[in-house]
This record gives sequence, structure tokens and C-alpha cells, in this order.
Amino acid sequence: MKSPIPEYLERILLECRDLDGGTIPEGNSELAKADPDFFGVALSSVGGSIYTAGDVDDLFSIQSISKTLTYALALDDNGIEAMLRVVDTEPSGDSFNEISLEPETGRPRNALINAGALAVHAMVKADSVEHRVERIRALHCALAGRELSVDRAVHEAELAADDRNTGIAHLLKAVGVLGAEPADVVEGYAGQCSISVSCRDLATIASVMANGGISPTTGERLLDAATDRRVLATMATCGMYDGSGSWIFTVGIPAKSGVAGAIIGVLPGQVGVAVVSPRLNAHGNSVRGVAVFERLSRDLELHMMHVSSTGQSAIRAMHDREESYRVELQGDLRFAGAETVVARFTEGFPGRRMIEVDFRHVREVDEAARGLLNESLFRLREDGYEVDVIDPNALL
Amino acid sequence: MKSPIPEYLERILLECRDLDGGTIPEGNSELAKADPDFFGVALSSVGGSIYTAGDVDDLFSIQSISKTLTYALALDDNGIEAMLRVVDTEPSGDSFNEISLEPETGRPRNALINAGALAVHAMVKADSVEHRVERIRALHCALAGRELSVDRAVHEAELAADDRNTGIAHLLKAVGVLGAEPADVVEGYAGQCSISVSCRDLATIASVMANGGISPTTGERLLDAATDRRVLATMATCGMYDGSGSWIFTVGIPAKSGVAGAIIGVLPGQVGVAVVSPRLNAHGNSVRGVAVFERLSRDLELHMMHVSSTGQSAIRAMHDREESYRVELQGDLRFAGAETVVARFTEGFPGRRMIEVDFRHVREVDEAARGLLNESLFRLREDGYEVDVIDPNALL
Amino acid sequence: MKSPIPEYLERILLECRDLDGGTIPEGNSELAKADPDFFGVALSSVGGSIYTAGDVDDLFSIQSISKTLTYALALDDNGIEAMLRVVDTEPSGDSFNEISLEPETGRPRNALINAGALAVHAMVKADSVEHRVERIRALHCALAGRELSVDRAVHEAELAADDRNTGIAHLLKAVGVLGAEPADVVEGYAGQCSISVSCRDLATIASVMANGGISPTTGERLLDAATDRRVLATMATCGMYDGSGSWIFTVGIPAKSGVAGAIIGVLPGQVGVAVVSPRLNAHGNSVRGVAVFERLSRDLELHMMHVSSTGQSAIRAMHDREESYRVELQGDLRFAGAETVVARFTEGFPGRRMIEVDFRHVREVDEAARGLLNESLFRLREDGYEVDVIDPNALL
Amino acid sequence: MKSPIPEYLERILLECRDLDGGTIPEGNSELAKADPDFFGVALSSVGGSIYTAGDVDDLFSIQSISKTLTYALALDDNGIEAMLRVVDTEPSGDSFNEISLEPETGRPRNALINAGALAVHAMVKADSVEHRVERIRALHCALAGRELSVDRAVHEAELAADDRNTGIAHLLKAVGVLGAEPADVVEGYAGQCSISVSCRDLATIASVMANGGISPTTGERLLDAATDRRVLATMATCGMYDGSGSWIFTVGIPAKSGVAGAIIGVLPGQVGVAVVSPRLNAHGNSVRGVAVFERLSRDLELHMMHVSSTGQSAIRAMHDREESYRVELQGDLRFAGAETVVARFTEGFPGRRMIEVDFRHVREVDEAARGLLNESLFRLREDGYEVDVIDPNALL
Repeated sequence: MKSPIPEYLERILLECRDLDGGTIPEGNSELAKADPDFFGVALSSVGGSIYTAGDVDDLFSIQSISKTLTYALALDDNGIEAMLRVVDTEPSGDSFNEISLEPETGRPRNALINAGALAVHAMVKADSVEHRVERIRALHCALAGRELSVDRAVHEAELAADDRNTGIAHLLKAVGVLGAEPADVVEGYAGQCSISVSCRDLATIASVMANGGISPTTGERLLDAATDRRVLATMATCGMYDGSGSWIFTVGIPAKSGVAGAIIGVLPGQVGVAVVSPRLNAHGNSVRGVAVFERLSRDLELHMMHVSSTGQSAIRAMHDREESYRVELQGDLRFAGAETVVARFTEGFPGRRMIEVDFRHVREVDEAARGLLNESLFRLREDGYEVDVIDPNALL
Repeated sequence: MKSPIPEYLERILLECRDLDGGTIPEGNSELAKADPDFFGVALSSVGGSIYTAGDVDDLFSIQSISKTLTYALALDDNGIEAMLRVVDTEPSGDSFNEISLEPETGRPRNALINAGALAVHAMVKADSVEHRVERIRALHCALAGRELSVDRAVHEAELAADDRNTGIAHLLKAVGVLGAEPADVVEGYAGQCSISVSCRDLATIASVMANGGISPTTGERLLDAATDRRVLATMATCGMYDGSGSWIFTVGIPAKSGVAGAIIGVLPGQVGVAVVSPRLNAHGNSVRGVAVFERLSRDLELHMMHVSSTGQSAIRAMHDREESYRVELQGDLRFAGAETVVARFTEGFPGRRMIEVDFRHVREVDEAARGLLNESLFRLREDGYEVDVIDPNALL
Repeated sequence: MKSPIPEYLERILLECRDLDGGTIPEGNSELAKADPDFFGVALSSVGGSIYTAGDVDDLFSIQSISKTLTYALALDDNGIEAMLRVVDTEPSGDSFNEISLEPETGRPRNALINAGALAVHAMVKADSVEHRVERIRALHCALAGRELSVDRAVHEAELAADDRNTGIAHLLKAVGVLGAEPADVVEGYAGQCSISVSCRDLATIASVMANGGISPTTGERLLDAATDRRVLATMATCGMYDGSGSWIFTVGIPAKSGVAGAIIGVLPGQVGVAVVSPRLNAHGNSVRGVAVFERLSRDLELHMMHVSSTGQSAIRAMHDREESYRVELQGDLRFAGAETVVARFTEGFPGRRMIEVDFRHVREVDEAARGLLNESLFRLREDGYEVDVIDPNALL
Repeated sequence: MKSPIPEYLERILLECRDLDGGTIPEGNSELAKADPDFFGVALSSVGGSIYTAGDVDDLFSIQSISKTLTYALALDDNGIEAMLRVVDTEPSGDSFNEISLEPETGRPRNALINAGALAVHAMVKADSVEHRVERIRALHCALAGRELSVDRAVHEAELAADDRNTGIAHLLKAVGVLGAEPADVVEGYAGQCSISVSCRDLATIASVMANGGISPTTGERLLDAATDRRVLATMATCGMYDGSGSWIFTVGIPAKSGVAGAIIGVLPGQVGVAVVSPRLNAHGNSVRGVAVFERLSRDLELHMMHVSSTGQSAIRAMHDREESYRVELQGDLRFAGAETVVARFTEGFPGRRMIEVDFRHVREVDEAARGLLNESLFRLREDGYEVDVIDPNALL
């Protein structure tokens, strides 16, 4: 059987290809050369599948989409308290070219506007500008699962038109929230924005973020889970500039766009999506990219508030045998899933002495679920049960 | 075994009880009588369990928390297009007592500030003020699972100090976004805010919203799924006034607070939470309520970006029998879950003619998943397989 | 000889008559009936001359222009401290239909936006709504020099579309800056706005304000001098809504416009001007009215920063006679004029014993000049001079 | 006789000397060395008198007060249209350290905030940074009537802490409103701010501005009259940052303050005032300086809306002789003064053939008055009068 998903994506491209309007920005002489008809979409699931249509392997510069993983890197380097001192987490309500510093502290409103991204870039620990760009590039490579390079022509073109970022960087230094020299930050930030990616790369990166920081293909943890959540929370409330509220209301996918025409979307627990098409609307977002996201959200019911009831499926099966009672667990155990297990435990197992709790079908157990389950197993034992935990992967 | 969860909740109450600060607002003479030490927390899972600690059965007025279900009712009555004409969905970035109308259209910024809630109240279809309040009350009763009444003393006290709402209502009428007479809207909105609830009621209501609109206890659908998602999206971006961004960043639970000191939180797919304690901080949120939510989020890793990989558990089991191949599905099927099934189908079933697809362990299939699965079953048949769908609940 | 001024005004009307654009607002059903070609200009000097062209005797409602004299009345009734508690004196930077309350105190930004004018209206001391409107009408009559009436049809039409003002009044009450009941304030304010005036009346009123509060024709003081200055200061910084800064920069005449299409301008010490033409631009100001003011300012060099050097002309003549030395003073003596007199005194009068200081050509002496001159006359006498003050009008 | 004015100024200093509060800003290491007790006041009339008290001859850096004359220079260099393209003329409503660029054009709100002053500095025509500073310095020297130098230590200290200005300059370049290279503008602007002045110098400068651009001592025109008016209009609406409206309401003197603790005030037609005292309030204005201005305004009734009725004194005398009728004019003739002359002419001179109009006591005639008078003299002649104009200074 051929999967209908690629055909569906092809159909969307066809229907959105004729969208008029939008312009290719002229600020960067390299970006200005983009083919206005360049158009691709890629969808990568947390199960490791990837579906594509259109121009998904051609390279372009990542631009502002790099703000997301760089924020992740800086959060890991410095911790949340230190990061909150240099950048807030509130939507700015302003258009994409506003500066939006907090009146009292001078902090940029959030990490996804330019002012915030410059402050965040400066917080990435490094010995030099080159080292800082290199660390950022390396994180993008890890999530993309392949080597990515910095496009020197784009980098130079960025630096040739950097008055705005230079201005913001000096202002940030003046209010004491810039952790490096303005010129270094502007140069390094331009480097970060010049990482060359394909639409396929961006969908792959997004799928890792959708998967809680774990690569769907290798199973390797590439981002701290709490950091991933924080970056996604910021994308949810601040990702689409002054239209973030209506984006979440209508599209419902935490997202981030870049000036080269790409948009990534991350639906936690489900998929990472990337679209690229260079012509931008007045908000600075890809005209066709926005249309594709609206279609995907509506057709595939992708919405961050539309999640499975994770608590329902934590108990895979219960086998009441003569000598023992076996409870088979499954899935990713969060608080709500663990709660259904504990709720079962509290009912007791009348007439049974031995309880087997089987974790072999469980993929992951978070701290909250682990604490709750361990406490409950302890209590079961205190109640006199003999409890046998089958946990070959040491999840508890 | 005794569940450790109630003990955990008791411990949180104990630790947060000493929190100083905050004041009981004086605007409403009935609210002003509140016991400053009143304190309760309730947590209700999508599995139907409810855990409580403290004063969870005493009644108080629901106040602004009623904005959420009333928005749901108005969305259902009028559709999303008509509602967007009277209220936007953007965070206001303003404090709770700002008016925040859009400069050009006069629309309130969102449905969860007072201006928006008044406009929304007026959109609930009704023959009279009483009818409108009655419909709103009825929806709250349905989700709470018990009869709730409007507190007449609170209602009258509201109306005795209604200059602010009267002012806003007239301004909304002046700009053409108020669908009823100002005096009626103010009276009806005061009625909606005076619905008497307990902390337990609020947690129960929140659990229905967490469960996609379906009652965890009766399995009955009480809210349209898309409406529920939209209300939750608005709570995520606008629920906590000017601190909504940092609330989602740190706490990560879509929430709404009321001036009587309650806060509800809805973690989709997991739990509904309610806390009540009357003393409010400068943002108008319960001091101890905020503290409890921060604890719950941290201890139980409750965060809206921390969800299970729903795709993982869609295939419950595969049984390769001689005559047939059986694929057992489970859980709530969204796009990502269905995609894992389709991905399996595309691998084919070499040497097998008959495929059984078993939906008996599936709870719900959304439109996107249904379309994708039906298309795939059709293609399997085109490939020559005999496909037998076991779907006694007609989910497809 | 025929004065060239009326011909000049006719020429301006002719040149501005063809100006396209602008619309007659539809909010008030009576205003909506205005003839779009209605057009008049009147210019009244502090010397008591009045020049007119066009429709200067037809009546229309004064509307927002009444905010200026009502502010004067309220300042006199309550004093400046009490007034500053209910309304600030800062430009709002907002368009004419913004509400502009101070975030912390709820005070309207200034007395010339609607919110401020409502708060100001409520501060006019009165026993009833009718009494308050009557006192305001009476002040307008006094300055216009004739009986003016309240147009009942306009008043009723105002009250039929008063949602915006009702809204603002309730908000002001809610924050504690409204000194009367909202409904009374809205009714009374509508009454104040419905005073019927002609273009000639407005110019006459403006000429009194230009003349420091004294009628140029009767010489009677109609406004306290300090109050007049304060009202003019507010007109200078806040009179033309969000374009007040550029109005003062380019036109340079403190002004106030009304929704019926009139604009008054007051150039202190020189002239009062009024123009009326009903079609309004997007800022709510008369299209042709603005054009006429720009012409008048440019052609006649009317600009508030372009004033005579008042110090130059304080000494009208000095007559050195054998037996005495006579200093004849003239004009309105302010500090700078008095200073030139004092500077002359300090040079001494060698060989003279008797000094005559002649105030017969002086029109007015302000407190500062009086103090300075009295002190100097005292010192002259201490120096041994015999000083004879000729001051039949007891100006000192 | 000894003038009482210096004693009055001494008394004010004595009374304001004890004012607590305020801090010396730390940003510039040279300014930080200022003596907190340094205190002086100078008052210079348009008649050429100067009165002083306190430390009026010690030097300090002019700082932001230089924005006023530099704006004058740039207006003269480029014309008003070109200047309006790079800087608006609206009050910003923001505190002194806000950036306040117009959302759509990027123009700074006005020339007296830092962003505007940088844009204005760049518009001063010059071959080099040094040339630009030199031209600005030269204009200050001309108005001060003595040689002023740039303080190199202050200039270097400014440049050592210039991140804020560098930031703003780059932002201005990015939006296309900076007419020179950012680094040059920052260096030159720092130079302009470092001009060394005394309190006496500032009062002298202010008196030229009060005198319509003509030196009260030499009679030389140093500023174009229209330019002077525009700069004063901007000082009136934007001079005291976010408190400009209440400053004009209560003090009523167009003013500008500098970070070294000086404030200049210009009352057109009357006096220039300067006060210096280094400790600043939260708005960035000298604590004692503000207090002195409030005292001067109240005691001396100095308020820009409190001007003499210039029309009153235009006719100095009328001599009806047998053979002729002589009309002696006086003062500075503006429109309103000329109008009183014309009004006299329209009454006719029954029985007289020869009219003498004597301009020997007139100091200045503006364009508007000149046109009106010439037209009227022409008409008198047409009416058959023989008109003899005595105008040795060719004022007509």
C-alpha cells in the first residue's frame, strides 16, 4: 500500500501555489536572490516517519528559526533564573520589527524577537565569536541528524546591513542585559542566522522538539526535556509576533518563522512540520507557509489543545491469575497515567498475594510518575502484598 | 492501599498556608466578607478520579472563571467567524483592569478580560437576561455534574458596584460590538459571575475541559471538541492577564482566575485543577493559588508542552495468524497515531490475504484520523487484501 | 478707506472652498443634517475690531469647543489643586476617540478629550443638571456678548447616541474621579455641547480669551487672568488631539475644534479666530477649517511664539524739566516692562529732586509688575527723591 | 537706587537651597564629579539687562540644552520640509530615556529627545565631524556673546559611555532617517553636548531666543525669526519630556533641561532664564532648578499665555495739525498692532489732505504687518490723501 500522506501534501502544495501577494525582503542581498516560486513542505512524526512534497532538499538560511534552539542552548548553559534576568517570556504584542524592551529593566520581552535573540545569543557560553557560532551550529546538526554549514555569502550580506541589530545590541549593553560586546554579538548572531538548512532538515529538527527532545530515529536525548518544554511554551505564546494569540487560536501549533520564508511548527507528542516559500506578508511570515499551516491544522486536526487522554492507556492489560495479579503498563507515563495505575492499586487485589507490575511496554517514565509509582509500590508492600516489578530498562 | 495523592495535596496546603500578603478586594461587599484563611485544592483526572485537600466543599462565587464556559457557549451559538467580529484572541499585555479595545475595530483584545467577557456574554443566544444567565448556569451544572445556583446576595452586591462594567458595556455598544443592551449585559454578566461553586466543582469542570469536552465520569460529550480547544488556546495565551507568557513558561497550565480567589487549570489529556484562597496579589490572582499551581506544575511535571507521544501507542498488538493478520488499535486516535498505523500498512503483509483491524480498544477517532484510516483501508483492499474492520462502536 | 482685511478673508474662503474630502459625522442625527458647503471665518482683535467672511451668523452647536470655557468655570469653582485631582494636563498622544486615562490614578489625560471634559463638567458647582448647564451657558453668553440658547433638538439627538459618553462617565465614576452621577453628567455635558453659536460668536469669545479674560469691547473682566492662561496653555499642548505638537509647530495658535465643524484659535494679546465648515478629516477636525488656520498663520504671521518685545514700550516718554523729571509709562505692564522702568530708575536722576511717574497711559499692571514698581518707588524715596505718582485709575 | 531684582533672586536661591532629594547621574564620569551644592540663577531681559545670583560664572557642560540651537541650525540648513522627514514635532509622552520612534516612519517623535537630537545633529551641514561641532559651537558663541569651548574631558567621558546613543544612531540609520554615519553622529553629538557654558551664558542665549532671534545687547539678528519660533514651539510642547503638558500648565515657560543640572527657559518678548544645580529628579530635571522656575513663574507672573495686548500700543500718538494729521507708530508691529492702525485709517480724516505716518519709534515690522500697512497706505492715497511716510530705517 502506498501511504496517502505524501499525496495529501502534494495536493496542499498545488492548492497553495497560486497564492498571490507577499514580497521577498530586500534587506539582505543574498536573500533577495531567492526564487519566489521555491516551495516545499515536510512533516516528520515522533514515530520517525517523514513525509515531504516540493522543494524539500534545497538549502536556504535558517534565519530567525535559529532563535529557538539557541534559546535552548542558552537555557541549558545558564539556567532559567539567569536567563530570566536578560530576557522576559511575555508576548510583545508588537510587530516583528519593534524593539520591545521592558520599560523598567530594559529586558527584551521574549527570546523570539530580535532584541531577545541578540541577548540570548550573547548568553551562549563560548571563548570567542567563532566558538559561539560553532556551538549553535553543532546543536542544529545534532537535531537535523546531519552536518550543516554556515553560508558565508549570507553571513557577509547580513553584516553588510546590520544597523538595526547593531543598534539594538548597543541599547541592550546600555541597559546591562548584553553579556558580550555588541559587535561580537551582531557578528555571531548573523552567523547563527546563516546556517544552511533544507525544509527536510527543519522538519527533522521540529520532530525532535515534538518528541520531548529525543530523536525519533535514534532514540537519543538531544535536548533536556524541561528546556524543550520552555522553548515550546515561548513559541506558543510569542512565536508569531503580534499575531501569536490568533495563531494559537486558529492554527494551534507552536511555531517560528524566518525571513528566508520558512516556518517550523512543533506539535508536542505528534509531529514536527516545516514549510518554505520566500514571499512574506506584512507580518514577516511566509504567505504560502501560513496557508499551508492553516490547511494542515484544519485537515489533520493538529492543535496543541487536542491531545490524547494519556491517562486512559497507561494500563495495557490486567491478568488475574491464580497465584498472582499482573498489571501491564504501557506508553509514556506522566502524572495522569501513573494516577490511573495508582487508582487501580487503591482498589486492592482481594484474595491475591503476589502483584506483578510489568513495565516492558512502557517507553518513558517522568520524575512525577516515578515518584508516585515508587511510593505506591512501597505502600502495596506495606499492605502485605508481594510486589514483583518487571522493569528490564530500569525506568523506575 | 491508600493513595499518596491526597497526602501530597495536604502537604502542599500546609506549606503554602503561611504565605503572607495579598488582600481581599473591597469592590463587592459580599466578596469582602470572605474568610482570608479559606483554602482548598482539588485535582480531577481525565480518568475520573478526584483528589482534594482543604476547604473543597464550601461555596463561593465563580466570578471571572465563568468567562471560559460562557465563551464556549457563545462560540457554539454563533460560530467562530461571528465571534471573531466581536472579540479578538490576542493577549492584551495589560493588567487585569485595563480595557484593551483594538484601536481600529473597538473589539476587546480577548474573551478573558472584562471587556471581552461582556461582549461574549451578550452573544449567548437568549430571549431575556434571565434566559441567558440560565443557559450559562445550565452549562456549568452539566460540567460540574450537579445543580449549581446563582447567589442572589453576590449578584446584588455586584450590581451595586457595577460602574466599571456599565462603562465598558456602553463603550462596546458605541463601537458596535455589543449584541445586547448595556444594562442587560451588565446584569446578566453579574449573574453569570455569581454562580456558586465549590473548589471540587471547579476541578470537575476543568477535568471535562481537559478531557476534550467529554465527562470523565459519564463519558458524555458536554462541549464540542473544537470549541474546547479554542477556549483552552485562549486560556493558554490570555488567561493570566499581563503575566500570561511567564505563566505558560513556568507553570505551563492553561488557567483562569476569579476575583473570589479561585484559579482553575486545565492540562489537556491529563487533569483539571482548582485552588481557592481569597487573598489576591497585585495582578488580581490568588496569592496562595498561584503558589499551589507552581508547586503542582513542578512536582507533578504538569506542563502543556510535556505530553505523551500519542503516536506510540496506537497499535496495541499485532497477531500474525495463519489465515489472517490482526492489528489491534487502542487509545484516542489523532493524526499522529493513525499515521503509525498507516506506516505499518505501507510495509504490507507478505503472504497474508485477510487483514483484521480491531477498533475495540479505541476510545475515540477524530476526523483527521478517520479520513486517513478509511483511505488506507480502501488502498489495502485495492492492493488485493481482504480487510475486516472490527468496529462495534462505529468509530470509523 | 475700506479695510483690506475683510477682502483678505473673502479671498481665503474662495481659495479653500474647493478643498475636497472630509465627511460629516453620522453619530448625531441633527449634525448629520449640516450643509456640507456651510463655510465662514471671523477674526476678532483684542482692540475690539471684528472681521468676517462667509456664513458667520448662521447657528450651529458649539460641541467640544465648550470644553474650554467649562474648564475655566470649573477651575474657578474648585481651584487648581482640586481640578488636578480629577484631570491631568498632559497631551494624550492619542486620537480624538481614545479614552486616555492615566494608568495609576484613572485621571483623564487632559480636559480637552471627552473623558476629561466629562470629569470637568461634573466639577462645575451646581444644584442640578439644569443649573450646571445654565451656569455654563451663562459664561458663554457673557463672552459672546449676547444671549445664546441650548438647541433642544441637538441635545436630544446627542442623548440618543450617548453610549460612548455614558461608558466613559461610568468608568470615571468607577475610578473615583467623577464628581456627579454618570447619567447627570452625560445629560449635562450633552447640554453644554448643544449651545447654539455662530462663527461670529466664537470669534468674539476667542477674542476675550486672547485679551487675558477682559472683553475688548466693554473692558469688563469676564475670566480670571490666571484661569485664562491655564485654559490657553491646555489648548496649546492638548487642543488638537494627537496632532497638537505639529499644530503648534506649524500653525502656532492655541486652538480647539468641535464636531460640528468649527475651530477656534486664540492668539494671546492679538486675536481670536473662528472658522466653521462641517466636513471633518480623520482626526475629527474641519478640513477647510484647518486649511484656513494654516493660511492665516502663514499670511498674518500669527504664532504664539511671535510676540512683541513687551519690555520695549513700557516707557512712553521721558521729560526732563527743570524742576522735575517725568517718566510716562504705557501699555500693559508685566514683569519685563516693569523691569525696563526699574532699570531706568537704577541709573538715577542726577540733579533732580522731584520724579513724576505717570500711569495715565497704562492699561493694566499685573501683580509682579506692581510689586516691583512699588518696591522701586519706595527705594527712590529712600534715596531722597520726592516721587509723585500720577495714577488716577489706581493701578498700583 | 539699587534694583530689587538681584535681591529677589538671592532670596529665591536661599529658599530653594535646602531642597532635599535628587541625585547626580553616574553615567558620565566627569559629570559625576559635580559639586552637589553648585547653584546659580540668571535672568536676562529682552531689554538687555541681566540679573544673577549664586554660581553664575562657573562652567559646566551644556548637554541636552544644545539640542535647541542645533535644531535651529539644522532647520536653517535644510528647511522645514526636509527636517520634518527626519524628525516629527509631537510630544512623546515618554520619559527622558525612551527612544520614541514613530511606528510607521521610524522618525523620532521630536528634536528634544535623544533620538531626535541625534537625527538633527546629523542634518547640520558639514564636511566632517569636527566641522559640524564647530558650526554648532559657533552658533552658541554668537548667542552667548563670547567665546565658548568644547570640554575635552567631558567629551571623552561621553564617548566612554555612549552605548545608548550608538544604539539609537544605528537604529535611525536602519530606518533611513540618519543623514551621516552612526559613529560620526555619536562623536559629534557628544561634542555638541560638551560645550562649556556658565549659567550667565545660558541666560544670555535664552534672551536672544526670547527676543525673536535678535541680540538684546547688539541688536544683531542671530537666528531667523521663523526658526526661533519653531524651536520655541517645540520647547513648549516637548521640552520637559513626559511632564511637558503640566510644565506649560503650571510654569508656562518654554524650557529645556540638561543632564548637568541646568534648565533654560524662554519667555518670548520678555526674558531668558537659566538655573543650574546638579542634583536631578526622576524625570532627569534639576530638583532645585524646577523649584526656582516654579517660583519665578508664580512671583513674576511669567507665563507664555500672559502677554501684553500688542495691539494697544501701536499708535503712540496722533497729532491733528491744521495742514496735516500725523500718526506716530511705536513698538514691534505684528498683525494685531497693524490692524489697530488700519482700523484708525478706515475712520478717515475728514477735512485733512495730508497724512503723516511716523515709523521712527517702531522697532520692527513683520511681513504680515508690512503687507497690511502698505496696502492701507495705497488705499489712503487712492482715497485722495497725500500720504507722507517717515521711515528712516526703511522698515516698510
